[in-house]
Amino acid sequence: MPLPLTIGIVLFEGFELLDVFGPCEAYGSNHLDGTFKLLTVAAQAGAIASAQGPAAIADYSFNTAPHLDMLLVPGGIGTRREVGNPTLLAWLRARSTDATIVTSVCTGAALLARTGLLDGLRATTNKRAFAWVTSQGPAVNWIRQARWVEDGKFATSSGVSAGIDMALALISRLVSAEVASTVAIAMEYEWHRDPAGSLRENPRPRMTPQ
Amino acid sequence: MPLPLTIGIVLFEGFELLDVFGPCEAYGSNHLDGTFKLLTVAAQAGAIASAQGPAAIADYSFNTAPHLDMLLVPGGIGTRREVGNPTLLAWLRARSTDATIVTSVCTGAALLARTGLLDGLRATTNKRAFAWVTSQGPAVNWIRQARWVEDGKFATSSGVSAGIDMALALISRLVSAEVASTVAIAMEYEWHRDPAGSLRENPRPRMTPQ
Repeated sequence: MPLPLTIGIVLFEGFELLDVFGPCEAYGSNHLDGTFKLLTVAAQAGAIASAQGPAAIADYSFNTAPHLDMLLVPGGIGTRREVGNPTLLAWLRARSTDATIVTSVCTGAALLARTGLLDGLRATTNKRAFAWVTSQGPAVNWIRQARWVEDGKFATSSGVSAGIDMALALISRLVSAEVASTVAIAMEYEWHRDPAGSLRENPRPRMTPQ
Repeated sequence: MPLPLTIGIVLFEGFELLDVFGPCEAYGSNHLDGTFKLLTVAAQAGAIASAQGPAAIADYSFNTAPHLDMLLVPGGIGTRREVGNPTLLAWLRARSTDATIVTSVCTGAALLARTGLLDGLRATTNKRAFAWVTSQGPAVNWIRQARWVEDGKFATSSGVSAGIDMALALISRLVSAEVASTVAIAMEYEWHRDPAGSLRENPRPRMTPQ
């Protein structure tokens, strides 16, 4: 795949902070030397408040965004509203069709599912919102027991930190395993390399409440 | 400690995305039900570009920020410039003196060190920038082998993801271990609970380059 790649990060009110900025930390690592160019896009350019409060800037509106090679669709409480937003869904469908790689984190999969483009494909999402997300795409082959799933151009991950694991896996495939490991180490992040392993449903001892 | 607590998140051009938004994801979790109120503060209010590209909004300028119970000082390439910024250092010194808890992630410790307030205290920082950061505070008792260090009101962490581990540890102390575990699980984050363990200097097998 020709590099560099422009990643369009989709923002909407109530996006989940780490769904966006965990993967951005990986893709934007200085060890990648500009391999990925990160742009933020929303219905309107400007400040967009996250679910946790702090706001990010959308660099482009849906109408002004340049060609996007990759998409990153985050989750967050705002997805509950955006699944009923025909403007966002039409834009997402068109740009997903144009893009080479389309990713979602957490309940961002509900938005992709509503475009219809996941129908017949394997996908996953946050296990804590599984019933709601899967109801948005009854024709999708939802994989419950997965940290992330790749099928064709689509890569969908479970909740929050799973999006970082998936981003590192994509860097490994698109650039190299060595660079992906270097990025993870620079982030002091313990990369979960197994896409089939769901941390939440197979909690390790240290993840269980004390 | 009386709750809720207002956290002032210090932004400057070239801040490290995940140093800021990893801890914010934890403190802003809906499982904490508003225990922490997150405000972003910079020299001037408005858009502040991260080291990775995407920009966040500073809600307040240094002059307009309300009382801050806690501070979060991130790292990032911008710290190389800000250690020489007397306006930021004077503000940080005054607000750290007023605050109940002062935290830094990664090279954010260099900024705290330059205020002089860490002199004689134990602190840590990113091992990849250890020589530079420690040169900013020769009277600080720097602990190389630590994921994070608490001494008095100051809590300083190693790089990036270590800031999430420290935030969860603070939530555990300020709220409860049960809630902190719930937040980590909701983030699908494998919380490293041992402040003495440095992931980078003691890499686990999965962290070594493939």
